[in-house]
Amino acid sequence: MQSRDVHLKSRPHGLPKAENFEIVTVDVPAPGPGQVQVKNLYMSVDPYMRGRMMDRESYVPPFKLGETLQGGAVGEVVASNAEGFAPGDLVSTMLGWREAFTAAPAAAALQKIDPHGLPPQAFLGVAGMPGLTAYVGLLKIAAMKPGDVVFVSAAAGAVGQIVCQIAKIKGGTVIGSAGGPEKCAYLKEIGVDQVIDYKAEKDLTKALLAAAPGGIDVYFENVGGAHLEAALNAAKPFARFAFCGMISMYNDTAPTPGPTNLALIVGKSLRIEGFIVSNHFDMMPGFVADVAGWIRSGKLTWRETIDEGVDNAPAAFLKLFTGDNMGKMLVKL
Amino acid sequence: MQSRDVHLKSRPHGLPKAENFEIVTVDVPAPGPGQVQVKNLYMSVDPYMRGRMMDRESYVPPFKLGETLQGGAVGEVVASNAEGFAPGDLVSTMLGWREAFTAAPAAAALQKIDPHGLPPQAFLGVAGMPGLTAYVGLLKIAAMKPGDVVFVSAAAGAVGQIVCQIAKIKGGTVIGSAGGPEKCAYLKEIGVDQVIDYKAEKDLTKALLAAAPGGIDVYFENVGGAHLEAALNAAKPFARFAFCGMISMYNDTAPTPGPTNLALIVGKSLRIEGFIVSNHFDMMPGFVADVAGWIRSGKLTWRETIDEGVDNAPAAFLKLFTGDNMGKMLVKL
Repeated sequence: MQSRDVHLKSRPHGLPKAENFEIVTVDVPAPGPGQVQVKNLYMSVDPYMRGRMMDRESYVPPFKLGETLQGGAVGEVVASNAEGFAPGDLVSTMLGWREAFTAAPAAAALQKIDPHGLPPQAFLGVAGMPGLTAYVGLLKIAAMKPGDVVFVSAAAGAVGQIVCQIAKIKGGTVIGSAGGPEKCAYLKEIGVDQVIDYKAEKDLTKALLAAAPGGIDVYFENVGGAHLEAALNAAKPFARFAFCGMISMYNDTAPTPGPTNLALIVGKSLRIEGFIVSNHFDMMPGFVADVAGWIRSGKLTWRETIDEGVDNAPAAFLKLFTGDNMGKMLVKL
Repeated sequence: MQSRDVHLKSRPHGLPKAENFEIVTVDVPAPGPGQVQVKNLYMSVDPYMRGRMMDRESYVPPFKLGETLQGGAVGEVVASNAEGFAPGDLVSTMLGWREAFTAAPAAAALQKIDPHGLPPQAFLGVAGMPGLTAYVGLLKIAAMKPGDVVFVSAAAGAVGQIVCQIAKIKGGTVIGSAGGPEKCAYLKEIGVDQVIDYKAEKDLTKALLAAAPGGIDVYFENVGGAHLEAALNAAKPFARFAFCGMISMYNDTAPTPGPTNLALIVGKSLRIEGFIVSNHFDMMPGFVADVAGWIRSGKLTWRETIDEGVDNAPAAFLKLFTGDNMGKMLVKL
């Protein structure tokens, strides 16, 4: 068997370009003792991967040049010499950006998936890492309570769309920010109370205070920059901010200053906490049970944007930064 | 009886000037029913007062023009028609910036002081609000644990000097930043492990990482700006920041951008929490018991800078921003 893999050819400066990536055909050997051979069905592209494309001191190891990129994927076991895995099993792994691989289950972070009646790619979105990210960030990090006014940036993205709906399920009032009328219409559809089209607003603080005249209790931060500044301005005393990401800064080629109003963190006794979902896998069982129930009862839905073919993975990744995706961005392999 | 009071004559733009204040002589009537007459012994000047001199929407009411300023003071009851207060009682109040007053105890936030063998002005410093601020911020907000590496900015100030010593008492390693050799020498005297003279450093991140090569667990934020940027750069994963103040920004005449590295809050899963000491008065009894014990056993000491006369109060207040005070800044009345 062979696989077309996506290699990191050079490190992007600013927005990634096609030339930073290279498609390389590699042999996928038959599984040795304790190994499985997996054909990927879908791979995920996520904003955090941009950080790993830099070569800098960081808490995550950078991707290596000339090697296959890594990321979430769901696939099907085609051959197995590993206990507990049989051909036909649906699995999630961290060996995305390739069509197939052979590896030991532990090395690939292989997990058998019980489909719960969901399509396989749902385990890269609503029922996977983005869903868990929304669940952990909103309920644990921001400690959202019924009655809270919750502001969500990048609200029509993979994580944001789930945050908005869990906040509604948990009895909150939700203000979602997204770019453009199509995304804003989708947010209305999923029950977001007030929608801000940030591309149409000159003054985000004004827009947010119009949407939440009494202020916000919770901010789910995916964006940074002007969104953070507006959230600080609109925060009620003792508001809690969950920092999930700052996509507005990932392609900066020069350091971008933070907002001018950080002193409000003191004055309003705000609590800000950053998190990485992989430190909260202990919440996975509760998350899966909740999400499966919410989907069954029609309380939780999602959108996804699916491009086809591993050669289109770099272009799909780029859409995350140009905002050309609606909901979870995926590549069907 | 008469009192010379300090009125706010005009709102400062940038660093406060003498012309923003006015000394006004007022009559202090004999106490009516339920009232006490108090002669102030010492008044406090504190950085947070700068915020209340602005007229802006905020969580604290701004000081009014043409009225006496307010702030912490300790005084002696000279006449009383209020139950529980007798002439000679030592009291703390929020009616500083004046030599004397007559008021109902509740209106003045009057509290009888048990001196515990300390001089009266200690209840405006180590055993008062600055001490409680240090105690709450370090032990509750930043949840400091034995073995933590603790970074303190404005470490030779009223609050910072107490933070440094409590962190040592609680088994931490302490890095203190202050401006100039005299303050740095004082920090060494009180047991600070590594001292940074920020005025002598071009690159605070480099200086902090040299002082704490393994990174910091806790940052006690009094300053903002470059200090915050360095603390973010040097933070270990899951570090906790207590935001007490941002004195570097209080006299800004134009909005000053925040640091460029806020995305580290996500990557390092940092927790940042602002606080105002008046929301934590429930910790006062434990604080008083601890502090009295630490002072008795010689584990906790303090410095103070005392100017004399109510007419010098505005100049004393200004010293907070020029760094011309060592430890707690006080005015003896």
